Amino acid sequence: MIATTPEPPYYAVIFTSLRSEVDAGYAEMAERMLALAAEQPGFLGVESAREGVGITVSYWRDPEAIRAWKANLEHREAQRLGHHQWYRHFRVRVARVEREYGI
Amino acid sequence: MIATTPEPPYYAVIFTSLRSEVDAGYAEMAERMLALAAEQPGFLGVESAREGVGITVSYWRDPEAIRAWKANLEHREAQRLGHHQWYRHFRVRVARVEREYGI
Repeated sequence: MIATTPEPPYYAVIFTSLRSEVDAGYAEMAERMLALAAEQPGFLGVESAREGVGITVSYWRDPEAIRAWKANLEHREAQRLGHHQWYRHFRVRVARVEREYGI
Repeated sequence: MIATTPEPPYYAVIFTSLRSEVDAGYAEMAERMLALAAEQPGFLGVESAREGVGITVSYWRDPEAIRAWKANLEHREAQRLGHHQWYRHFRVRVARVEREYGI
């Protein structure tokens, strides 16, 4: 549940969201997108929690891997539905991880 | 609950954790650290959720602001207790936010 990532540098996409009241298909799509992301070239790991606000941080080898994932056709349809149905607000932040430590 | 942050670049500290079974003082300290962080120079905002894994992302103006916060004496004591009591595992990732978008 905590991602195992390589030595920095690598990239993080921090996706923060507040859900709408529309549930139709959301849980299935969220699960499908996690599985699909994990198959993409350059995917390094993901961490996700929702407690009111939802935070999903996915880790990627480089900006090209993030761009390719954003452009994935099935992901684009999920983004479209997310924008119009499932999310009241969201922010996407793309960040370069410079250092990492922990236990 | 979604942080309002300025135009990039700025920095993110992604703190991901798994709690131990020790609760003593944890909730109070977590709340105190959020309030104390918000008083620090260069603090831009914070987002936090726990659902099994805990993810707290704090946003900062620059690496100097992050270094000063890490060295804050009251925060150092919280880090020490976190390391020894409250967290089974944690990762801290320091990242430079390069772009941001959303609704």
